[in-house]
Amino acid sequence: MTAGARMHELVRRLHPICRSMTGDGVRRTLEIIGESIPLEVHEVPTGTPVLDWTIPQEWNIRDAYVKDRTGRRVVDFAATPLHVVGYSVPVHATLPFAELREHLHTLPGQPDLIPYRAGYYSGTWGFCLSDNTLKELQEDEEFEVRIDATLADGHLTYAEHVVPGRQADEVLIVCHTCHPALANETLAGIAVAVELAQALAAIPGGPRLTYRFLFAPGTIGSITWLARNRDRLGLVKHGLVLACAGDPGPLRYKRSRRGDAAVDRAAAYALRELEHTLVDFTPYGYDERQFCSPGFNLPVGLLTRSPNEGYPEYHTSADDPELVTPDAMAGTLAAVREIVEVLEGDRVYLNLQPYGEPQLGKRGLYTSPSLNRDNKQHQMAILWILNYSDGDHSLLDIAQRSEIPFAAVVEAAQALTEAGLLIEQSPEGGERT
Amino acid sequence: MTAGARMHELVRRLHPICRSMTGDGVRRTLEIIGESIPLEVHEVPTGTPVLDWTIPQEWNIRDAYVKDRTGRRVVDFAATPLHVVGYSVPVHATLPFAELREHLHTLPGQPDLIPYRAGYYSGTWGFCLSDNTLKELQEDEEFEVRIDATLADGHLTYAEHVVPGRQADEVLIVCHTCHPALANETLAGIAVAVELAQALAAIPGGPRLTYRFLFAPGTIGSITWLARNRDRLGLVKHGLVLACAGDPGPLRYKRSRRGDAAVDRAAAYALRELEHTLVDFTPYGYDERQFCSPGFNLPVGLLTRSPNEGYPEYHTSADDPELVTPDAMAGTLAAVREIVEVLEGDRVYLNLQPYGEPQLGKRGLYTSPSLNRDNKQHQMAILWILNYSDGDHSLLDIAQRSEIPFAAVVEAAQALTEAGLLIEQSPEGGERT
Amino acid sequence: MTAGARMHELVRRLHPICRSMTGDGVRRTLEIIGESIPLEVHEVPTGTPVLDWTIPQEWNIRDAYVKDRTGRRVVDFAATPLHVVGYSVPVHATLPFAELREHLHTLPGQPDLIPYRAGYYSGTWGFCLSDNTLKELQEDEEFEVRIDATLADGHLTYAEHVVPGRQADEVLIVCHTCHPALANETLAGIAVAVELAQALAAIPGGPRLTYRFLFAPGTIGSITWLARNRDRLGLVKHGLVLACAGDPGPLRYKRSRRGDAAVDRAAAYALRELEHTLVDFTPYGYDERQFCSPGFNLPVGLLTRSPNEGYPEYHTSADDPELVTPDAMAGTLAAVREIVEVLEGDRVYLNLQPYGEPQLGKRGLYTSPSLNRDNKQHQMAILWILNYSDGDHSLLDIAQRSEIPFAAVVEAAQALTEAGLLIEQSPEGGERT
Repeated sequence: MTAGARMHELVRRLHPICRSMTGDGVRRTLEIIGESIPLEVHEVPTGTPVLDWTIPQEWNIRDAYVKDRTGRRVVDFAATPLHVVGYSVPVHATLPFAELREHLHTLPGQPDLIPYRAGYYSGTWGFCLSDNTLKELQEDEEFEVRIDATLADGHLTYAEHVVPGRQADEVLIVCHTCHPALANETLAGIAVAVELAQALAAIPGGPRLTYRFLFAPGTIGSITWLARNRDRLGLVKHGLVLACAGDPGPLRYKRSRRGDAAVDRAAAYALRELEHTLVDFTPYGYDERQFCSPGFNLPVGLLTRSPNEGYPEYHTSADDPELVTPDAMAGTLAAVREIVEVLEGDRVYLNLQPYGEPQLGKRGLYTSPSLNRDNKQHQMAILWILNYSDGDHSLLDIAQRSEIPFAAVVEAAQALTEAGLLIEQSPEGGERT
Repeated sequence: MTAGARMHELVRRLHPICRSMTGDGVRRTLEIIGESIPLEVHEVPTGTPVLDWTIPQEWNIRDAYVKDRTGRRVVDFAATPLHVVGYSVPVHATLPFAELREHLHTLPGQPDLIPYRAGYYSGTWGFCLSDNTLKELQEDEEFEVRIDATLADGHLTYAEHVVPGRQADEVLIVCHTCHPALANETLAGIAVAVELAQALAAIPGGPRLTYRFLFAPGTIGSITWLARNRDRLGLVKHGLVLACAGDPGPLRYKRSRRGDAAVDRAAAYALRELEHTLVDFTPYGYDERQFCSPGFNLPVGLLTRSPNEGYPEYHTSADDPELVTPDAMAGTLAAVREIVEVLEGDRVYLNLQPYGEPQLGKRGLYTSPSLNRDNKQHQMAILWILNYSDGDHSLLDIAQRSEIPFAAVVEAAQALTEAGLLIEQSPEGGERT
Repeated sequence: MTAGARMHELVRRLHPICRSMTGDGVRRTLEIIGESIPLEVHEVPTGTPVLDWTIPQEWNIRDAYVKDRTGRRVVDFAATPLHVVGYSVPVHATLPFAELREHLHTLPGQPDLIPYRAGYYSGTWGFCLSDNTLKELQEDEEFEVRIDATLADGHLTYAEHVVPGRQADEVLIVCHTCHPALANETLAGIAVAVELAQALAAIPGGPRLTYRFLFAPGTIGSITWLARNRDRLGLVKHGLVLACAGDPGPLRYKRSRRGDAAVDRAAAYALRELEHTLVDFTPYGYDERQFCSPGFNLPVGLLTRSPNEGYPEYHTSADDPELVTPDAMAGTLAAVREIVEVLEGDRVYLNLQPYGEPQLGKRGLYTSPSLNRDNKQHQMAILWILNYSDGDHSLLDIAQRSEIPFAAVVEAAQALTEAGLLIEQSPEGGERT
């Protein structure tokens, strides 16, 4: 089974679950993810203060419907969780159409589709339905509405999975888990993250960096994680939010607030030969806005295919497993893996013989280009690394400036290190010991 | 009466007066301006040292002519003050044509027009006339020439008008008053300044910044003002020289020597949707060259329509009230007012809840875009301001980066300030108390 | 005789000599150069450590050939020194063709041409010949090969010529001397350097800066010079490597590693109106790579016409005196002289009257542009210099920003200095005394 097929299978399995900011739908989602990669699940009680926020009550729903006078369910939660506005308060009443109408949401411009709506913190209730269905309702009738939900003290649930690296420095990969039945917007990113975690774990000897995967509800989930990890945020050297990861649109990377963080440069490099767009940070989108709030200002970018609000199926019932393709998710995964490859390999070295070129021949590093025109890229990589390993240029800088592929630059740096000509610069700017 | 009509009326009234670096023409000009806005008039005695210069003698002229042998005035000061070279020494003599010719200035390429010339500090005299008139003079005749002028100890005259603001920080608006009968080059800028001063005074509660209008002869006038205000130049936070302000050409802003001063950025923003040009500072033009001399380096730009030397009527008798239109002056005034609006509103704020996004809902600042798509620009402005109010970005920076109109950003900052989420940064970089 | 003709004559005279990294060919070359400009010749013994390198044994060759069974020399060193791989070890043997073949180098893509090859430090031997000649050899025959060379302790030879200036600050001009019979690649640069040295010596009163010409074998020669001059490298304020200086291609300047050194800016300015290319530093090319190694990071650029590897005759027998034209060398010389003119004239001055414009009239520096439109460029240059002589802008900066020719800016700075308004800034940033 290809990675693409596995990812699509996971999306299809997660799709029907009714997720929201809190509740059993989130827990069930994490259980299924946990079948592929072990998760540490965190439960944070209602009322806990987190930064400027407070953990809200937990919302759970069992059933919901609108029945016409014949008892037929004209809107039925069993068909799709999108039918109920998220965090609706419980209701059971019989209402004339005019009163009901104030609680109904449709998309007149896309009359076949059911919109996604949530009403966090609002104390209201509502149903979402297609505009076509709305038009079939008899305006002179009464309707029975029921939302069998509970909004009560409980917990907010999120989970972490860590792939340990040889260094404590962390790469944070973030997926939101709070949206029901949105295959591309929510689930494709989760599927890519699961595959990435498995690929990292399979690296012989493990990756250099430590990879922390966070599956949490949007906004409040990341805020909760930030509040609970405030003392160790210094370890987060790079980060990537994954969303809208499976539609056929071209890849799009939104830079971190820093704009030139290593992950921003790695992403630009990884995408350079693919159809893609690069955009500057904006404080609207997914949870990069929390990680990139000015007090934290962490180097966290956002990778999507079509951006939020950037495709017609966004936040509708048409964002279903048909919209998401195995190939598109495989493409997203490949791009993330190339970003990871750059983050793994990119380092700043110091040339230990910086006065003139060192004599490469006596160290077995030189093949005269006039006698042997092979291996020229390797020779050139050696010269570039020696000249620019002055503490100000990383291997990615050198790859970009020399136009030599990054992997070849990493390989040449390895050869120079083994020959004793190069040493990794420590984070403090001296030689790494 | 529209502002355009009022400005054109003022230009027409000021046009016939014989102005020069000093003298009663300047005083009469200031009297007329003083009918609209009260002026503090300064008289600085001849011989006073000002920076590297000395206040020159005062020049006044009563009459001047060239008469042919029939006694006809072939050149007559009464027709236009342009006929006499500024600061000509007195003369009364009868001269053969050949000798007279050395004192006559024409524009052979524009044979209908009389040029403007001045001979400050040169101790010479001369007449300006059209080349067509010159050709009619009989080369074998003698001519009586008379310049009934005095060059004697007196004063240099300039004036100030202040619109006080809630803060002592000043915006300096500068117009030169030293050129006779040049409607666009000299007078249109004066007319725009007068209207601006009246508009600022009409702001309820007054403007935030203090506006100082300076009406002074070019070069020596600004040098005099700088010499006499040297101790308080630190208050000059922004400045604008107005000249060539009424012809139909597109607007043109010349940046201050700093290049990225707040006034430079405000002008670029204010002009962005108009036909206009932006140019870098050059040390030639109007009195911005004095304010932007390297020792002072004040943030003073130059706003014109067609630049000096950039229109065919420049420094000729064709720069008359017909060249200047009410609409063009109204356009200049509107641009200056928009620059002022940005200077008034642009400030640096600090987000007081910079860790994650603050919870807007509990402060009444949030309307879910998924339930209410109105008011989206306001919501976005709030997010942008919160994210970028880190002490490094002003509201104008945020407006430009977010592409949200400046006025909407100012309004959102107001809402956030009232909600206790934002505080103005003090000039020293901390919170403004 | 024109400079172009003189340079071409020198190239033709030097062309037949068998040069290599060391040996009598280099000494003979320096003798001939010394006929035009006096040289200080340095001999550094084999085994001397220089930076990371060691001076190698000296190589000298008297004769070399490949004879067929009839005794005919099918490859003959006497025809061109290119026939022998540089630094070949001595050999005298009779070999079957198959064994000989491993020691033969040709250019199958350019079958008429003999390639240039060297095998420094490799302990091998070889012959270079045209592919056409190779094809005429009988594959079933034996051949007598002889290389009558010695590889023995001796010296590495390089030479310096200094044109003393009024200041000790140095401009380093570098030519490599190690390649046999390559007219454009090696010799044209030498010829340009010789003419330049003579032109500098002819400046009345001498140049401002001191010019040091270095004629040395590539790589090891510059490394030797760097090792022996390490304590005085602080004097090297500018440098230029000259190579490939005589073919008809357009000029090409490769920036120093610093990228914005004075020589980089001078070269860009000097070439601005010629067909040319400007490229960033790369750590491959000529000896700029040693001077620009990160430990030294000297401001040394490379001026060529067609770059190394950038023309079809490069490193072949077709790089002969026919490829090099007097006009092309004259063009290179003119460009170098203009670079030198900028380096000579470019300085940072301080305006001693920076508050407002100084009164130029009382110092005889002002001619009213409204009375005299001549001399306007000079007036403008004065204003630009006064405004930008704040310690941050050199005369070249001012020339570029004002678009006034550099020579006119230098002339105006001279006038301002004589008037006491300007003083040269000392290297420490204060006034130069």
